[in-house]
Amino acid sequence: MTDETGGPVRPSRSRLQPLAPDRVRIIGGFWAELQDRNRRAILPHIDHWLDRAGWLGNFSADPADRRGREFSDSEIYKFLEALAWQLGSQPDPVLAERYDAIVARVAAAQQPDGYLNTWFGRPGQPPRWSDLAWGHELYCLGHLIQAAVARARTGHPEDLLVRVACRAADLVCEVFGADGLATVDGHPVIEPALVELYRVTGETRYLEQARLFLERRGHHVLPEIEWGREYYQDDMPIRDATVFRGHAVRAVYLASGALDLADETGDGELLDAVTRQWRRTVARRVYLTGGIGSRHMDEAFGEDFVLPPDRAYSETCASVGSVMVAWRLLLAHGDPAAADLIERTLYNVVATSPAADGKSFFYANTLHRRTAGPVPDPDRPHPRPVAPVRAPWFEVSCCPTNVARTVASLAGYLATTDGDGIQLHQYASGTVAGRLTVTTRYPAEGEIRVRIDRDSDEPWSLSLRVPAWAGDGATLTVGGHTWEVEPGYVTERRRWKQGDEVLLCLPVVPRFTYPDPRVDAVRGCVAVERGPVVYALESVDLPGGLTVDDVRVDPDEPPRLVDGRVVVHLRQVAASDRTWPYTDGPARAPGADLGEIPLVAYHDWANRGPATMRVWLPT
Amino acid sequence: MTDETGGPVRPSRSRLQPLAPDRVRIIGGFWAELQDRNRRAILPHIDHWLDRAGWLGNFSADPADRRGREFSDSEIYKFLEALAWQLGSQPDPVLAERYDAIVARVAAAQQPDGYLNTWFGRPGQPPRWSDLAWGHELYCLGHLIQAAVARARTGHPEDLLVRVACRAADLVCEVFGADGLATVDGHPVIEPALVELYRVTGETRYLEQARLFLERRGHHVLPEIEWGREYYQDDMPIRDATVFRGHAVRAVYLASGALDLADETGDGELLDAVTRQWRRTVARRVYLTGGIGSRHMDEAFGEDFVLPPDRAYSETCASVGSVMVAWRLLLAHGDPAAADLIERTLYNVVATSPAADGKSFFYANTLHRRTAGPVPDPDRPHPRPVAPVRAPWFEVSCCPTNVARTVASLAGYLATTDGDGIQLHQYASGTVAGRLTVTTRYPAEGEIRVRIDRDSDEPWSLSLRVPAWAGDGATLTVGGHTWEVEPGYVTERRRWKQGDEVLLCLPVVPRFTYPDPRVDAVRGCVAVERGPVVYALESVDLPGGLTVDDVRVDPDEPPRLVDGRVVVHLRQVAASDRTWPYTDGPARAPGADLGEIPLVAYHDWANRGPATMRVWLPT
Repeated sequence: MTDETGGPVRPSRSRLQPLAPDRVRIIGGFWAELQDRNRRAILPHIDHWLDRAGWLGNFSADPADRRGREFSDSEIYKFLEALAWQLGSQPDPVLAERYDAIVARVAAAQQPDGYLNTWFGRPGQPPRWSDLAWGHELYCLGHLIQAAVARARTGHPEDLLVRVACRAADLVCEVFGADGLATVDGHPVIEPALVELYRVTGETRYLEQARLFLERRGHHVLPEIEWGREYYQDDMPIRDATVFRGHAVRAVYLASGALDLADETGDGELLDAVTRQWRRTVARRVYLTGGIGSRHMDEAFGEDFVLPPDRAYSETCASVGSVMVAWRLLLAHGDPAAADLIERTLYNVVATSPAADGKSFFYANTLHRRTAGPVPDPDRPHPRPVAPVRAPWFEVSCCPTNVARTVASLAGYLATTDGDGIQLHQYASGTVAGRLTVTTRYPAEGEIRVRIDRDSDEPWSLSLRVPAWAGDGATLTVGGHTWEVEPGYVTERRRWKQGDEVLLCLPVVPRFTYPDPRVDAVRGCVAVERGPVVYALESVDLPGGLTVDDVRVDPDEPPRLVDGRVVVHLRQVAASDRTWPYTDGPARAPGADLGEIPLVAYHDWANRGPATMRVWLPT
Repeated sequence: MTDETGGPVRPSRSRLQPLAPDRVRIIGGFWAELQDRNRRAILPHIDHWLDRAGWLGNFSADPADRRGREFSDSEIYKFLEALAWQLGSQPDPVLAERYDAIVARVAAAQQPDGYLNTWFGRPGQPPRWSDLAWGHELYCLGHLIQAAVARARTGHPEDLLVRVACRAADLVCEVFGADGLATVDGHPVIEPALVELYRVTGETRYLEQARLFLERRGHHVLPEIEWGREYYQDDMPIRDATVFRGHAVRAVYLASGALDLADETGDGELLDAVTRQWRRTVARRVYLTGGIGSRHMDEAFGEDFVLPPDRAYSETCASVGSVMVAWRLLLAHGDPAAADLIERTLYNVVATSPAADGKSFFYANTLHRRTAGPVPDPDRPHPRPVAPVRAPWFEVSCCPTNVARTVASLAGYLATTDGDGIQLHQYASGTVAGRLTVTTRYPAEGEIRVRIDRDSDEPWSLSLRVPAWAGDGATLTVGGHTWEVEPGYVTERRRWKQGDEVLLCLPVVPRFTYPDPRVDAVRGCVAVERGPVVYALESVDLPGGLTVDDVRVDPDEPPRLVDGRVVVHLRQVAASDRTWPYTDGPARAPGADLGEIPLVAYHDWANRGPATMRVWLPT
């Protein structure tokens, strides 16, 4: 083992370097609350359901009794990854014991040659590697490896899980190596996992195997399917693509692997290709929330500017993968747009998925709900992930564990270092690298106070991100001087002394946001944002049984903050009893004045009973 | 056999009665051209592919060699239905021979007890009735019966196919009768088929069996599925529903059966329930084209006002079923809205599906295509019915045969009779019931000339439909007098003499149409219609490589007719290179003036090579 530090990812050549998980602590505010909810509620909830659904039991059960879908092993691994990050940030004997018990169970199921999967290869089951397009065998092993990497990076490089993962990876290299099966898995994730395992172990064969998988895909090595090979990015080599496409989770996991490979091999051409694809995707295929994927049918990206709020799929897992990609690009380029997208995605998708009590989750994150549907049974897995409701568990339950592992590793995304200093990308009260203490109530308030905790004889640079939305009125105060700062990174290079203070003030006043005219689905609408937080109108805040589709907003009356709530002036639209919804004249003018109506932070919606909701408000 | 007349449907108690197919002839204009294309190109094309795909061969092939999906038998039956209508309107020895050959092949595959299906029940196949939710066994038999009904109604009540259908229906009554399997098929169509077979044969057990199927559905007799039981209308009894929902084709086929049952049993409550559901559906869930079904994932109705043009599924088959429902309601109530919807649906969906050469078909009928995709291989079945392209054949190829049977029976939808006279619902040059000759170039021109062909001593009523869009400026001329007429039916009761003439003039000037403000997806847009025909902008008519998403229309400049083409004044929208598609100010004003640009009738689009297209134009 060559290295046991580094956060969720540890590139070798990137412009910025992540800090080890134990070097950043989040101690208060929005993210601390979510991490606390993760530890107290989400992780035990997942543990309960993995056991109850039989997915954990699969590792010791008779093959004939196997339960769940073909990829259910991966949920155990993502849960282990979440536990590893959690234990790395905060000792917890109960969780530690649970982690060890599950790892022992997983290890016991591993075949002598390293093979590990509960769906394939045992008596009465399909043979190993017999359904690479849909079987998710390498996908499951990818998540196994990522869990092991998390464990290694949090002080346990010799953990049993790491040894299990290496044995499995060795088998993968043997079976799928240069002389082996020349194909790929239908669902990427083994690619970034193998590069990361190489980073942890120094075993170059893992890197080489990741390269093989990445170079093979795109040459029609998987079967043609109804949705087209773009579904699993096998339509063209990743170097030739111009935008993320196909199944959204697959696309971003694959892009993460490509960026990891580009970093380790110094492949600037590959880095540039993925960067271009990402930029075009961000400019044309991302919801205001940061969510990606606008198609229910194939859980896929739509075409450019196809971003319907009501059929937003915006799968929670796709956002987790989007953060993975943006984080790698932020490290590679120091591009503030990547940090902006991470912030937007964390506040408005990752934080939206779990309910306030941490016991149910959105799988899809719609931006418009027209009918107030039933609340799912809290004691039953939900068969329909696409339903715009939080459910305790799903038949396909990839999202809860993905939320858990992301939230448990959040500290890793706050700050980086380079040869010259420290960069703060996200703002939460806490400590960074033993050198800084951040105090803030952001995003509820705009002041971010950074105190220097250590004297330095040499000058070093402190950089703070000014988000793109803060284009007007952001200020920095250092040593009694205050000046306006522009979006991007503002850098102060000084011989900092203990007790020095830097104050960044961001204008977190509510604002209207307008869509690009090419986004057909929200033409004639505005959204309300405040800082990085997207707001929504929820029908429980409307008078007299109105739904969110009965109202209009006047864009000349901007939203305001009243008693800590964001409010907006609404008018009712007179109901119509037309027998045919198309007429020869424009629609009638709005009706009754409803006055100022409070909005809710989008990540808080659907916590007050059945309701209709919309993010984009017609003008 | 009690009756061999009546068109596609022959109710017993309806207010209006259909005319037998041989009593109406279409001899010129739009529908004559389409019928001619059907006979010359579409029917031979289907015949070729049914054979080539092996679906016809399944009736004599070894069970182990069976090809196609579980419902492929139904395509043979829909083709036979199309042939039956075609032969009923125009003798054709070649088609007649082909019809007989296929019927002989089908008959030979029938089991001694009447069972007939090539997917189930033979050695190595799943047992009969073992997968009612998805196996489509009764669905296939429903289409078999409908083909037989068409044959009986076109002068062949003793045809071999009628005997085959009766034997199959007898088995269905035995197996699924009051003491039999108390369930239903996942895909309705057996319901209207059995009522229709009762109408043809007088066998009341068929009517009773249809009643059993209709009353059983809705009580959760089929398994819960990811999309919910509403997918196959098993979520609630049809009497309790308020709107069409779930899989669109299933919904309208079922509604047709319910209306047939209501008619034969005099069940006014059931008629009222379906009528209410239809009215609400038409007011809230129908595309401007008449198309239904806005979800790709489950081919289903969206919620009220969820009508995205770019993801319009608007399956061709769903429109065929929508015409079936509207025709039954028109007969039951004489409601002009039903005739309006039939006209709209025929011109803008049914006529849109087949290409100009009759050799490829839209399965889904999108209202907005953003990227000019590849033209499908004319020599290969297309795996993706949802692709916005016409393809020669599909893995699921329900639409070509549905178009063929509808077009072949079009004459049946033009006119009806009641105790007092004749009602003209659709306008095409031709003859009606030996009493009228219609001469018109409608919808290209608005004059419809009806000449009386026979003297009458008694007065009788001639009714002509004035479409809802003709609210301003429609006139009727009789005996030298001209007056304005309102939408609905205008009726003249006279002692008509041979040579009398009635002239209806409809204002077929191009017009803008505005959406209900609750249709979120087309807010801020207008469409262009002319008469019953919806128009579209196709990129091949734009200068300089622009796509349809680069332009805006000024709603103050109405569309005009110039040299026979509908043109509209467009402006270019300045391109934007934003890195993020959401901004703090409204979009920029339009750019260069493009002048007047011709539009294309929506049913004619995609006949001039790859192109982008949109029906709804941003203002």
